[in-house]
Amino acid sequence: MRARDLAEPYVSVSKGADAIEAVRLIVEQRLPGLLVTDSAGQPYAALPACDVVRTLVPGYVQEDGGLARVIDERHADHLCRALRGRTVADCLSVGRLFLPTAASDWAAVELAELMARSRSPLIAVVEQSDEDPGRLLGVITAARLLERLLQAV
Amino acid sequence: MRARDLAEPYVSVSKGADAIEAVRLIVEQRLPGLLVTDSAGQPYAALPACDVVRTLVPGYVQEDGGLARVIDERHADHLCRALRGRTVADCLSVGRLFLPTAASDWAAVELAELMARSRSPLIAVVEQSDEDPGRLLGVITAARLLERLLQAV
Repeated sequence: MRARDLAEPYVSVSKGADAIEAVRLIVEQRLPGLLVTDSAGQPYAALPACDVVRTLVPGYVQEDGGLARVIDERHADHLCRALRGRTVADCLSVGRLFLPTAASDWAAVELAELMARSRSPLIAVVEQSDEDPGRLLGVITAARLLERLLQAV
Repeated sequence: MRARDLAEPYVSVSKGADAIEAVRLIVEQRLPGLLVTDSAGQPYAALPACDVVRTLVPGYVQEDGGLARVIDERHADHLCRALRGRTVADCLSVGRLFLPTAASDWAAVELAELMARSRSPLIAVVEQSDEDPGRLLGVITAARLLERLLQAV
């Protein structure tokens, strides 16, 4: 079984998409994060849901966490407004998660080694050909890879 | 709305449980990770599914990733056997994710500040009383917190 057999579709958004759209996808499907693609549809980054939360926290609270205690509930209702007019790319942290990428013919051990080393919950699988530098086939989650590896126990 | 209103049950395992049991839970419910509790049922750690994958990768492959390419598919079938006789605690990495914990009366802004600072996908919510040092009420995921914050947009 190769990477192409394990790859599955995963909810993705373009990096230029509206940030509020990304939040709605995370909320509606209870996702731990999203796959972010570039304008050509290539895998670009993983966006963990906790990084979207960080985007909502006002800078003065990020600098002094104690201020979170003095913000009243009504103000909290306005936090999501910070996303208005912002894109998915604006939610990626500067040291955003490196998105590990595997070729379609990689074996399970190679995928496990990459996932262990990168500590990423997702691996993007791309099909490379002479015409195409890396068409996205899908994503392999840690749960999917464990399912493959558990079969032999 | 306070932390106690947002807390939800989350799949958890005791740190002394069989590691293969943890893998089965992750696979069957397609989870990105598990909440690990101590012998008293208190939140102990978050176990990301990718850390379980790391436990399966032989030491010599972790040291030299190139070796992953030369291990044949049949050997890969044996990787999960590395978990036999091991506990969930054995799968936690030494620098395992700090599990951030909130008191039950925390407001949304405080939760967001903690999640942003710790970059954790989960916050454990505990109820503290004179008799009890911290009974686990449940967990708040980033998706749940975003749902709360999105209501006002």
